[in-house]
Amino acid sequence: MTGATPSASTIRFERVAVIGVGLIGGSFALGLKAAGRCSSVVGVGRNPDNMRVASERGIIDIVEADAAEAVRGADLVLVATPVAQFEQLFARIVSNLSPSALVMDAGSTKQDVVAAARAALGNRISQFVPAHPIAGAEHSGAAAAKADLFHKKRVVLAPLEENSPQLVELAAIAWEACGARISRMTPAEHDAVFAAVSHLPHFLAYALVHEYAGRANQEQLFGYAAGGFRDFTRIASSHPEMWRDICVANREALVAELDRYVDKLQAMRIPLMTGDGAALEEVFGEARDARNRWLAGEFDR
Amino acid sequence: MTGATPSASTIRFERVAVIGVGLIGGSFALGLKAAGRCSSVVGVGRNPDNMRVASERGIIDIVEADAAEAVRGADLVLVATPVAQFEQLFARIVSNLSPSALVMDAGSTKQDVVAAARAALGNRISQFVPAHPIAGAEHSGAAAAKADLFHKKRVVLAPLEENSPQLVELAAIAWEACGARISRMTPAEHDAVFAAVSHLPHFLAYALVHEYAGRANQEQLFGYAAGGFRDFTRIASSHPEMWRDICVANREALVAELDRYVDKLQAMRIPLMTGDGAALEEVFGEARDARNRWLAGEFDR
Repeated sequence: MTGATPSASTIRFERVAVIGVGLIGGSFALGLKAAGRCSSVVGVGRNPDNMRVASERGIIDIVEADAAEAVRGADLVLVATPVAQFEQLFARIVSNLSPSALVMDAGSTKQDVVAAARAALGNRISQFVPAHPIAGAEHSGAAAAKADLFHKKRVVLAPLEENSPQLVELAAIAWEACGARISRMTPAEHDAVFAAVSHLPHFLAYALVHEYAGRANQEQLFGYAAGGFRDFTRIASSHPEMWRDICVANREALVAELDRYVDKLQAMRIPLMTGDGAALEEVFGEARDARNRWLAGEFDR
Repeated sequence: MTGATPSASTIRFERVAVIGVGLIGGSFALGLKAAGRCSSVVGVGRNPDNMRVASERGIIDIVEADAAEAVRGADLVLVATPVAQFEQLFARIVSNLSPSALVMDAGSTKQDVVAAARAALGNRISQFVPAHPIAGAEHSGAAAAKADLFHKKRVVLAPLEENSPQLVELAAIAWEACGARISRMTPAEHDAVFAAVSHLPHFLAYALVHEYAGRANQEQLFGYAAGGFRDFTRIASSHPEMWRDICVANREALVAELDRYVDKLQAMRIPLMTGDGAALEEVFGEARDARNRWLAGEFDR
């Protein structure tokens, strides 16, 4: 990436290192390959069965046990393991990173990832562009990866002051090659937004299910739970370890949102207590209208 | 219904009056007809277009503007209008009720319905068997009615002390003819259970959407809301008027559940604040396990 930036359509990565070849890492590799944007992918992972699936499916071309070896000569490195492993991984790869390599993550939180990257990457921090693809799914592992997972999905880039505009653009080009739409936010802004629209709903759903699972009449309660309860609590079937990490990593923003939500509930408790139907109907109606505007795409960008 | 109870398979209603021919009332009529359990259905409704659809679809055989006329000679009366109209309707029909007629409702709350029925029906209260079919749907009106809406769905009967066992059994037979599974609870027990597994989730979903719709950055927040948020808030697209009525009618039980839920959130706030990942993971894991057991049918009865 010296001199003039090549046009987006001609950029091609020679060696892509994917550390953690699960749904996200595997789909990123497949997406780049399908777009003709990469020559070879080296994959790193701890589960031999998963790595065999990744090889058999053509997601990766080379299996490498050691992340430090995998990044040698790579022009693009995606770290797609659980966030808790990031700092150790960054420390492991830093000395073998090519000076021009683009390094990205795919974590659900950003401020903690940036802190880990700063601690481990030192002056190589300028090569790290934090990224969060908004594309979860019910299934996980290389077996679930697919080339179009990111198609029309949003990927948030949370660039650092140290990143060059060219490197951030390169990051955008890689995800766009996978079909994604790019948004940019600061890491703090990212964590505040996702505390509200993702992390708090998960916390609330886990809380509701856990509350009823602890009741003496839990069998009766679950026996009468129906479709509304099922959808409301679907995210309470998410991975406990992953959500533990997200909640702990983003606890400052999440506590702030939780407190505002409890305040909201206490405010709505007043018309409920007094049987003020008009006030309740106004809240319910405004909420329904906002949600319907959202479903209609009014807040798309 | 004098002498020995006829076997369930021979019971047939001669004239069924359905007051409020929407999704529930219309599907009840279609279900009874499909099972060969009723000779004719008289329908009462205020919306001429809806009543025309109900006639054209063969849901009802007779359109009657006046509920008092409709129940004359009926051996089964289903009141399936919004709950807020019940007391007035009961008062309107009481003097024309056949002494052997079975009267049921289809409301989502029971204690308030029983109070309205007691106030309006007087000593005819023994003919009223409170019922709550657990079968909502996205669509409403006679156009959405279908014979199998209640197939394998649960219908809660909340019988009164004044009901004869034979009449309660007749109520069960009618819903079973529509394919439903019958449960019995007291009205108070019903309202407590549904405050927990239905009314509180609706209240919480409305609160969350309304909270974010009121933020200065609402466009940004909704712009990044994804699948988890969509499912969690699906019930916030429910009818504001209907949920206003349910919340007001069942406010005592709902406030009690709300308070317990806020206590739960405050308890879970402590490990969140202190970054106690192990404690959070335990709650999340237990919640996921309970939900998965529920999905697997462990709490079916």
